Amino acid sequence: MLVKTKNRKCILKIETIKWDKGAVKIIDQTKLPQKLIYVRCVTVKQVWDAIRILKVRGAPAIGAAAALGVVLGISKKRFSSFNDLRKEVDKLVKYLASARPTAVNLFWALERMKSVVLKNKLDDIKEITQKLIAEASAIIDEDKRTCRKMAQNAQVLIKKNDRILTYCNAGILATVDYGTALGCIYRANELKKNVKVYSCETRPLLQGARLTCWELNKKGVDVTLICDSMAGYLMQQKKIDKIFIGADRIAANGDAANKIGSYSVSVLANFHKIPFYVAAPLSTFDVSLKDGNQIPIEQRSKSEVSELFFKRSITAKGVDVYNPAFDVVPAKLISGIVTEAGVITPPFPKKIARLFKS
Amino acid sequence: MLVKTKNRKCILKIETIKWDKGAVKIIDQTKLPQKLIYVRCVTVKQVWDAIRILKVRGAPAIGAAAALGVVLGISKKRFSSFNDLRKEVDKLVKYLASARPTAVNLFWALERMKSVVLKNKLDDIKEITQKLIAEASAIIDEDKRTCRKMAQNAQVLIKKNDRILTYCNAGILATVDYGTALGCIYRANELKKNVKVYSCETRPLLQGARLTCWELNKKGVDVTLICDSMAGYLMQQKKIDKIFIGADRIAANGDAANKIGSYSVSVLANFHKIPFYVAAPLSTFDVSLKDGNQIPIEQRSKSEVSELFFKRSITAKGVDVYNPAFDVVPAKLISGIVTEAGVITPPFPKKIARLFKS
Repeated sequence: MLVKTKNRKCILKIETIKWDKGAVKIIDQTKLPQKLIYVRCVTVKQVWDAIRILKVRGAPAIGAAAALGVVLGISKKRFSSFNDLRKEVDKLVKYLASARPTAVNLFWALERMKSVVLKNKLDDIKEITQKLIAEASAIIDEDKRTCRKMAQNAQVLIKKNDRILTYCNAGILATVDYGTALGCIYRANELKKNVKVYSCETRPLLQGARLTCWELNKKGVDVTLICDSMAGYLMQQKKIDKIFIGADRIAANGDAANKIGSYSVSVLANFHKIPFYVAAPLSTFDVSLKDGNQIPIEQRSKSEVSELFFKRSITAKGVDVYNPAFDVVPAKLISGIVTEAGVITPPFPKKIARLFKS
Repeated sequence: MLVKTKNRKCILKIETIKWDKGAVKIIDQTKLPQKLIYVRCVTVKQVWDAIRILKVRGAPAIGAAAALGVVLGISKKRFSSFNDLRKEVDKLVKYLASARPTAVNLFWALERMKSVVLKNKLDDIKEITQKLIAEASAIIDEDKRTCRKMAQNAQVLIKKNDRILTYCNAGILATVDYGTALGCIYRANELKKNVKVYSCETRPLLQGARLTCWELNKKGVDVTLICDSMAGYLMQQKKIDKIFIGADRIAANGDAANKIGSYSVSVLANFHKIPFYVAAPLSTFDVSLKDGNQIPIEQRSKSEVSELFFKRSITAKGVDVYNPAFDVVPAKLISGIVTEAGVITPPFPKKIARLFKS
């Protein structure tokens, strides 16, 4: 079922992802900003595709989508033994984990689902199924609370009239609700800090132009769209007070993978002595990785670059294209990492380790 | 008259601009790479429009186009006195100079045309007209020779197997022939240096994707298209050995205005200790300006950003857009300026002054 909503209508509630009567209901983000279309994924394959082609994207949102994907998968079947259920969950986890490689929240959420099965092997199958549903639900609820906490924690960093540059989309559409980096901005807005946002368009897939501008605009935040190439010029002109971005995976030393281009922005910010903040929940940390070099960087289709977003070629036939989807901001260029547990400041390694010691 | 050429046909000769039987004949660069279309401008207004909407662009090319525009203007009229002719040339110069504000070659070429009139006021009108035609022709011929000289002078900077990043288009299409920054690469290619080029797409108007990739590809140079946001990542991955860009105006201290985004690339190059070279003829220098702060930066239509190149909106209605068309690379981030008089190395001010002392 597709629900179309007119573009100009004021959207009070943007529901990135939710469980809806036996289906994973998401906003098809590839259609924004032209159309706000909700899509109901009724098969696990549809969830996988939605993650793969970025109908749903953003590290926390794809974690939530994958958890609901597991629920969807097991809801379709009857299991005669614990082993049957465990095998099916393992299969679903492996399949959904293959949708995209960089954002660790995907694997984190799937691991949580897998653990529910293993931890409750003495329960009967119906109970385990209920616990899986409860776990997916918890992932979603925690994400909502986490974003609010991050947003509040970030307020020590945001002053009245700040002009903030952001990159890609780390907003409502990247999470279940409220956002990571944009959540910090929404909270500042609620506190009447009158912040102004510059949104880099974020080629190749234009998440900044299409998604960030759309949601900030809907929520009444002052936003100006720029091309990615203009960020340096704006900093040079002293039009930017600080940077807030999200992250897809943060290593033990604080290196943070995020949408391709984030690294350039961090170098530019460093050169202009502008604070560069990353906002991400603890579920985005992967402390099993020593540093950012170990984070796998997704390579995506060349046509995303050569055909823009609208299937029209912008270059000559025969021209090669390179399309890495992420890069890594080295910890030394990060001024602070906003999490639900507070703002972590450099040097990061020991402080991150402390948060994850078990 | 429009001449259409199939995209896939091998183009042996790309003629950016020339005088063609009473018309200024140019390639309509807004149609590339899909179509190679030559347009004949038969009115001065058509020449002005062609410069304004970037049918012809690139500092040296618009200088040549404007000079031919003056020839076109006077060829339409009969003059009864020197004053009549002088007034008409002044009017044409003023009009054509209003097409775009940043590239100084436009004003430089028009000033040359104006000087011809003033220097020859004792000649009869027919002779002055002939001298104006000869001056436009000289501007064109000099541009061709200048590009070849620059290209040769740059060879001390280019090693075998160099991987060169370029930005926007400083090639055949930006000049009468051969190019500035890309001319250096063509010469390296002729010398079998096996260089590899990364071309930034250059948002908003995609001159890198559309024009640079097209002409390098036609000329058999190995070129890979990237989004502007990927330049930093490539440098971090040690995939770039040096940068070559063109310029629209270079101040007395070496500050160089070039397509928006050039500044970001220069900061990134500096951070990664990668040499950053500007290739530009002496006609691109404006030694009347102390530094880059005095270079006027053109602001262009917001729709160039918000509607991509193909009139399809990429952002929500009501979102503001900022669209400066150039920025300035500070002299301190430039490793060398390649000119027809040789490669100028830092510190620039005295060396530039020496080239322009009269």
